[in-house]
Amino acid sequence: MLSLRDPIHGFIRADPLEAALINSRPLQRLRTIHQLGLTFLVFPGAEHSRFSHALGAMHLAGRAYDALCSRAEGLLPGGINARERRLARVAALLHDLGHAPFSHSAEELFQGGIDHEEMTRRLIASAEMARIFERWGDGITPEDVLRLLTGQGAPVERLLGQIVSGELDVDKMDYLLRDSLFCGVRYGNFDLDRLLETLLPIEDPGTGAWGIGLEEGGVHAVEALVLARYYMFTQVYFNATGKALELHLNQWLAEAGQRWPDTPEAFLEEDDVSIWSAMRRSASLHARAVVDREHFPVAFETREHLSAEEKRSFEALLPELARRFGAGNLLVSNSAKDPHRLRTSRVLVRHYDGTLEPMTEASQFIRHLARIERFRVYTPQALRQPVGAAIRELWSA
Amino acid sequence: MLSLRDPIHGFIRADPLEAALINSRPLQRLRTIHQLGLTFLVFPGAEHSRFSHALGAMHLAGRAYDALCSRAEGLLPGGINARERRLARVAALLHDLGHAPFSHSAEELFQGGIDHEEMTRRLIASAEMARIFERWGDGITPEDVLRLLTGQGAPVERLLGQIVSGELDVDKMDYLLRDSLFCGVRYGNFDLDRLLETLLPIEDPGTGAWGIGLEEGGVHAVEALVLARYYMFTQVYFNATGKALELHLNQWLAEAGQRWPDTPEAFLEEDDVSIWSAMRRSASLHARAVVDREHFPVAFETREHLSAEEKRSFEALLPELARRFGAGNLLVSNSAKDPHRLRTSRVLVRHYDGTLEPMTEASQFIRHLARIERFRVYTPQALRQPVGAAIRELWSA
Amino acid sequence: MLSLRDPIHGFIRADPLEAALINSRPLQRLRTIHQLGLTFLVFPGAEHSRFSHALGAMHLAGRAYDALCSRAEGLLPGGINARERRLARVAALLHDLGHAPFSHSAEELFQGGIDHEEMTRRLIASAEMARIFERWGDGITPEDVLRLLTGQGAPVERLLGQIVSGELDVDKMDYLLRDSLFCGVRYGNFDLDRLLETLLPIEDPGTGAWGIGLEEGGVHAVEALVLARYYMFTQVYFNATGKALELHLNQWLAEAGQRWPDTPEAFLEEDDVSIWSAMRRSASLHARAVVDREHFPVAFETREHLSAEEKRSFEALLPELARRFGAGNLLVSNSAKDPHRLRTSRVLVRHYDGTLEPMTEASQFIRHLARIERFRVYTPQALRQPVGAAIRELWSA
Amino acid sequence: MLSLRDPIHGFIRADPLEAALINSRPLQRLRTIHQLGLTFLVFPGAEHSRFSHALGAMHLAGRAYDALCSRAEGLLPGGINARERRLARVAALLHDLGHAPFSHSAEELFQGGIDHEEMTRRLIASAEMARIFERWGDGITPEDVLRLLTGQGAPVERLLGQIVSGELDVDKMDYLLRDSLFCGVRYGNFDLDRLLETLLPIEDPGTGAWGIGLEEGGVHAVEALVLARYYMFTQVYFNATGKALELHLNQWLAEAGQRWPDTPEAFLEEDDVSIWSAMRRSASLHARAVVDREHFPVAFETREHLSAEEKRSFEALLPELARRFGAGNLLVSNSAKDPHRLRTSRVLVRHYDGTLEPMTEASQFIRHLARIERFRVYTPQALRQPVGAAIRELWSA
Repeated sequence: MLSLRDPIHGFIRADPLEAALINSRPLQRLRTIHQLGLTFLVFPGAEHSRFSHALGAMHLAGRAYDALCSRAEGLLPGGINARERRLARVAALLHDLGHAPFSHSAEELFQGGIDHEEMTRRLIASAEMARIFERWGDGITPEDVLRLLTGQGAPVERLLGQIVSGELDVDKMDYLLRDSLFCGVRYGNFDLDRLLETLLPIEDPGTGAWGIGLEEGGVHAVEALVLARYYMFTQVYFNATGKALELHLNQWLAEAGQRWPDTPEAFLEEDDVSIWSAMRRSASLHARAVVDREHFPVAFETREHLSAEEKRSFEALLPELARRFGAGNLLVSNSAKDPHRLRTSRVLVRHYDGTLEPMTEASQFIRHLARIERFRVYTPQALRQPVGAAIRELWSA
Repeated sequence: MLSLRDPIHGFIRADPLEAALINSRPLQRLRTIHQLGLTFLVFPGAEHSRFSHALGAMHLAGRAYDALCSRAEGLLPGGINARERRLARVAALLHDLGHAPFSHSAEELFQGGIDHEEMTRRLIASAEMARIFERWGDGITPEDVLRLLTGQGAPVERLLGQIVSGELDVDKMDYLLRDSLFCGVRYGNFDLDRLLETLLPIEDPGTGAWGIGLEEGGVHAVEALVLARYYMFTQVYFNATGKALELHLNQWLAEAGQRWPDTPEAFLEEDDVSIWSAMRRSASLHARAVVDREHFPVAFETREHLSAEEKRSFEALLPELARRFGAGNLLVSNSAKDPHRLRTSRVLVRHYDGTLEPMTEASQFIRHLARIERFRVYTPQALRQPVGAAIRELWSA
Repeated sequence: MLSLRDPIHGFIRADPLEAALINSRPLQRLRTIHQLGLTFLVFPGAEHSRFSHALGAMHLAGRAYDALCSRAEGLLPGGINARERRLARVAALLHDLGHAPFSHSAEELFQGGIDHEEMTRRLIASAEMARIFERWGDGITPEDVLRLLTGQGAPVERLLGQIVSGELDVDKMDYLLRDSLFCGVRYGNFDLDRLLETLLPIEDPGTGAWGIGLEEGGVHAVEALVLARYYMFTQVYFNATGKALELHLNQWLAEAGQRWPDTPEAFLEEDDVSIWSAMRRSASLHARAVVDREHFPVAFETREHLSAEEKRSFEALLPELARRFGAGNLLVSNSAKDPHRLRTSRVLVRHYDGTLEPMTEASQFIRHLARIERFRVYTPQALRQPVGAAIRELWSA
Repeated sequence: MLSLRDPIHGFIRADPLEAALINSRPLQRLRTIHQLGLTFLVFPGAEHSRFSHALGAMHLAGRAYDALCSRAEGLLPGGINARERRLARVAALLHDLGHAPFSHSAEELFQGGIDHEEMTRRLIASAEMARIFERWGDGITPEDVLRLLTGQGAPVERLLGQIVSGELDVDKMDYLLRDSLFCGVRYGNFDLDRLLETLLPIEDPGTGAWGIGLEEGGVHAVEALVLARYYMFTQVYFNATGKALELHLNQWLAEAGQRWPDTPEAFLEEDDVSIWSAMRRSASLHARAVVDREHFPVAFETREHLSAEEKRSFEALLPELARRFGAGNLLVSNSAKDPHRLRTSRVLVRHYDGTLEPMTEASQFIRHLARIERFRVYTPQALRQPVGAAIRELWSA
């Protein structure tokens, strides 16, 4: 039994299949993918990688499984070695394999029109992984994992899938706690123990599907999770300086014609180290902006929550802005995120009297959380004032 | 310099005046007043007293003062020994002196129609305290403290007063962190360092008064504070079992004709120890209910947020309920609390461009937090079903 | 399943037997026994009771059992409901029942020459407890618990007994972490997870008895536990002011002719509340010394580690001191404690090659930790100088 | 005022000089030097860099300065902007500039016979730094910093030098807390607040030099610091797997003829990224051993504390071992460290009566901590048994 120390969860243990997967190249590559891209240039502690997040997600998948199992009345088999439990853990371990260098910072650059989730699937289906599952799988195949990650399969598999990817998934639980700790902030803290304590599998009477729901007593714990995520987005992930660096990175990648390969073997060569090495040898303004942190300053930023109409009108002024100042002198970030997807992926609350209610109703304020929708325009220092003035003029027009 | 260890704040230091006040009878009495009344019977760790809270509030008053001072541009004098700073700390140390046994659990029982805040003032004005201020005050008098605690005096004094009692006061900051730790929950956590970092004195252009406001960057930190308080109320302070015990306590106190004296000397004799000693020797059903935790179970509870209309209609059915089952068989709790008072006590946010906005506008969801307004009806086990049924029948009628 | 929140361990769960025991009078009485006696008068946070410690010890007994079980190769049955596991937990829950008011501060005053451990046994054997075990025991009897607590029974029972009382017991683990947190110090911290990770049952080849030992990799974790305890004794439990208050308490109890009853029923009436109520109504100098913290100051204290010879010579001068200044003017504390008992209760370390070695050999410095043996003499302020001078004169003579 | 978040210390603030230094290339290069070399391959969380450690050391230098100042009776000027305080902070910020890639893992490879401390000095004296000090120094020059770091200058400067480098320096305080957190262990924890609380400047009556000493009450806090360091060495820094990876790294660097430049400009090009990029493209067995973690296993390891005689005899058998199995098949690590240097760099303890005593006397067990001196021999899997057997045979001979 492999046993690893983790700053968030203490001891994390891995059975032989998990240990072999951890030792594989696709997992080890995550050691050189920063969990938060270039954020470490803003929050110095954010030097952690996707690798430790993957371990943490695996660990939490076991805890979430046990929580659901204890209230599942026969739906899920108990015991530490139950195949369903192992499957959920392995899926969590592998769920982030396909992340491009610097994680979300530059995730649009895949060849062949794929995204990082498709690359995750290709890596899981690769020969290297196949050999590991063959040798150590003991009833679990790559296909099982893929079915889980794509939300397919039998009702129980779809329930397991939600442990890894859903509104109340272990991905979120781990990254909020982990990113908070490493960034040195507290926004992402929530009551993990209490949350797990209140999860339970609920069969949606409308659709007949099993999903992860909660007892009435957990409503506030879920609210806290939603808010923790919301705050991490507004305060950390959408940080103004971090966004600037990300824009410069993407400019440089575009200049350099960099694309992420769509085949596993080639993809495995690309990580933060390969990109950072190239970038710091480059004389490009955008490379220097990142490496020397000489990024464009903010000339203008909108409020945090533009309406759809405001968004359209802001986007409409950008061509004129580019005409006046030159597209090369403008970097525009659009930080957009729904605070949750509780409307579409229904999370049900079971009241003490047995009645069910969607979380959006059970919570009095979650439905009032507005979508984050903010633009920032960055420009060279010398243009800062005129660009800002021009935007104010054009937008009010 | 007296130096004390504290689980929340580490070392807490006290100058000679503070040390003498800490050693006075009114402060020492707080050692035998549970910070959370009978809550320790529900959350076993909640054994902490008002005494350590008073020390913590004093400590935080110094930190809040320093934060305001660093952004006050001459409004407040700097330095650890500045009179204004010492005054704010002393006021925080003394702000809770008048709490009755079991804190808020039975605070309506003062003789002479006074409340615990009036008793606080009487204790501060008592001869024992006068002697201490005379000997160690060094420019601070009991009258100065009273002026601060009642929100009077010069503009700067009213600003200092808000450190101790206001929407962003150190009382709240300390009790949320302290009660969370001791109860073993995380609801009350918020980012204290970040919050203090963003406080600043703002002159309200409408009224000309100075108040504690914040920079735009602190909006989410204040939201987190408001939510921490809201969750502590719903999850801990208004806990169903805790409320039951509190009702029984009040019944027993009524039976025993217990009132809290309105003179300092007599009041100092009353604390949790004196009441608990008497209660456990009593054969009264209500004393046993508390001491042996054989409290009435919940027969009915409303949702957490009744409208004014719902509240009226619920109260209207209570006489009929008492007629049917006997008033002695019914204990009714009304847990009511505004999630904040930001509407009436305006907290201003200063945006990066210097404009001011009330916090209720700057935050997108704080104004949607509804008032907590919940009734619970407790009754002997044998009547639980019929009482519940009767309420459902009467209320829907 | 009863579920309680704890500041140290998070959720603590109790099965029906445990819940019934928790609800019994002997357990509930521990709520009004301060875990650290009068220490709260020195470390304001130390307001915690034996009750939460008992819950914590029960919780850790389960964790220690699971750790031993996972390396016990059939010696101990696995699973959360194994009778042996439940037995260890219940024994830990009940192990402190017989503590006198203010815990160790005044534990010599039992009638009939018994001690608090004998009272613990009498309470476990009482009719109230018998009824609970009869109703909920499900294979566990009071006799089983008594056998465990007295280190008797079959080899496996003696092994279980060490979980509750031995060099590596859960009593110590819990109180070190708990007392550190509440006192606001860090002396008592050690790596609980790592320690549990390295425990294993070892059959002593010399005696054939099973005991709790450890893997070589745990040597430093045990050293840290031993040091944590050592520091808590020197810095907190043997604090100079705390010892003064304890001496006054004992003086007052002696004056008042107070003895702790040796029958369960009468004993249940005595707790910190009953004593504190009486003490604060008393005009005795010693009662005031405690209640008003007007204790005698230290006139003299020895170094922390007297040799046996130094101890004898110090004790020899005390009669002459009493003759000169009057016995009533002198309070003498002797703070004495072995840093561990690893010599007599052999803890074995299993090296990677399978060889065994006693912990005292495996650790390079544990055997060098000297016994704490320190005297302090307290006296009224006016006598402080002459008493100190006299001791220096007499001792050097 | 630049304000940064840190996982250990919360907010870290930097004045203009500090901010400019932080932004310099030598400091920014530390972002790509792992604080613990290859340790992240063993403790997944250890992904932190020398950069955040440098910030932490700067922050603690201010706290240590304030602690000394408050008990220095005029020796050190008070106030946040005192030149001496700024100097100590800047020296702490810059003290690690010259670390080679992977920190201590390969620090012997400097050209020109220099070490990382000499490189630190060259970087501080470089033109880039000179420009910064000229622009922002405000009374502080690179020469001032160099004098501090080399323990020269006036008595007060030598005292300041000990804040950065001495037995009780902020380097140690920061790395112990930081490495513990990121590794997910607790070995390195000690009571920072208490330690700082007891520091005081003491003039050594023997030498007349001022040094950082402590009050009697801090003896246990310093013991805890010494033990924390000792445990971090035995459990983390000298971890068996970590040492194997380090040996392979050094083999690969030797094969590749890699040396660290002895001129600042060239040196700035070398960091973990440059080495890791090269290593992972290499087919060398040693590069693969690190990158794919296919390191030689341990064939033999000695106990942790060899005597000088044992050390000599072990070293004496190595030539014969190499003869039998081939030098290329053997990697030998020697993990050696004194637990402290309290004998040579006297730390004085001031007792309550004013007498002074060296820390080695004041602590009863610190002098019993033996030097760590351990050999491990690594070899390819196939030779593991024969090599182990040969060592046992040769050593006992």
